[in-house]
Amino acid sequence: MRTRTKLLTFAPAMLLVWAAWPQTATSGKSGPEYTSDGEFRLPADYRGWVYLSSGFDMSYNPAAQTNHHMFDNVFVNPEAWRAFLQTGRWPDKTVLVLEARGAESRGSINQKGNFQGAAVMGLEVHVKDQSRFPGKWGFFGFSGSSTAAKMIPLTENCYSCHNDHGAVDSTFVQFYPTLMPIAKQKGTLEAAYEKETQNR
Amino acid sequence: MRTRTKLLTFAPAMLLVWAAWPQTATSGKSGPEYTSDGEFRLPADYRGWVYLSSGFDMSYNPAAQTNHHMFDNVFVNPEAWRAFLQTGRWPDKTVLVLEARGAESRGSINQKGNFQGAAVMGLEVHVKDQSRFPGKWGFFGFSGSSTAAKMIPLTENCYSCHNDHGAVDSTFVQFYPTLMPIAKQKGTLEAAYEKETQNR
Repeated sequence: MRTRTKLLTFAPAMLLVWAAWPQTATSGKSGPEYTSDGEFRLPADYRGWVYLSSGFDMSYNPAAQTNHHMFDNVFVNPEAWRAFLQTGRWPDKTVLVLEARGAESRGSINQKGNFQGAAVMGLEVHVKDQSRFPGKWGFFGFSGSSTAAKMIPLTENCYSCHNDHGAVDSTFVQFYPTLMPIAKQKGTLEAAYEKETQNR
Repeated sequence: MRTRTKLLTFAPAMLLVWAAWPQTATSGKSGPEYTSDGEFRLPADYRGWVYLSSGFDMSYNPAAQTNHHMFDNVFVNPEAWRAFLQTGRWPDKTVLVLEARGAESRGSINQKGNFQGAAVMGLEVHVKDQSRFPGKWGFFGFSGSSTAAKMIPLTENCYSCHNDHGAVDSTFVQFYPTLMPIAKQKGTLEAAYEKETQNR
């Protein structure tokens, strides 16, 4: 069975992963790593990174329909998070990981609402690597059990959507509740984002 | 406005916190700390700890009604998480933090589903400190802007519910999708939990 969904924060190039991601303890190093042919290596230990927030059935399409509920969780490498707390900006070598998980219900003593299931339904990564990517940031989508991925082409609309609507440096800080107050305080919100929200 | 909700994983003693919790970078130390009169100090840096999972409108009461949607996020101190990955058990000095946040919708480009709001609506902590607590674990609920709390009395049903239904050592590992496979592999699921789920 293949299922398709559309997540908000990381572009529509949603790819499917059907196995839970292996866990390892957080290592000291958490910046981007690439294969010899330039593919981005999925960080195996991202679940030990810093959590930013979760969404539930988020979509930019008000008519979006799926046959199941979905959670999305966003993680960032600890060095980048610490820099953001200090400056309200993402440093070079920031890695954001979006993990999609199916929502389950009525398990164990839970009678109402939803909790996260074991299956990782999608993984996407947004990487700031200024010397490597035109526009500073690259997107990567991981399918199946793959642990490395080619960059999503710059013509895909994840790039334009993040550039046009991201609150800080093409990222959706407006959906990260602990970071948004810092961006406001440090004055790092994009002018386009401020204009967009003022007009509502 | 005061709002009341009921969360699943950490007992019904839901207390209310109306300010976003301050952010600090993760320090090296992450075990329990107490005031001189034995109150538990809320760890200021728990958002830099390891994320376990989130729920959406979870409740053990199928008839539960609220006038808003809620997320709950669970964090654990990194030392305890690393020990669990190795052993499938929680070490002494484990600290689990449950954070409740209101769910928002239709913000920025989001048209459907929910994302997490800035206000922390509740904070509860579950602490394993074997030399301090009868039964090894203590629960604490934080209200308002308080940063220390007395232990919730052992007569409250959070204790009996966790003891009776928690998959591992009175904790709801069954709702933590990356830890459950480890508990299964290490053989640390409670017999009562296995019996309960076999009968379904």
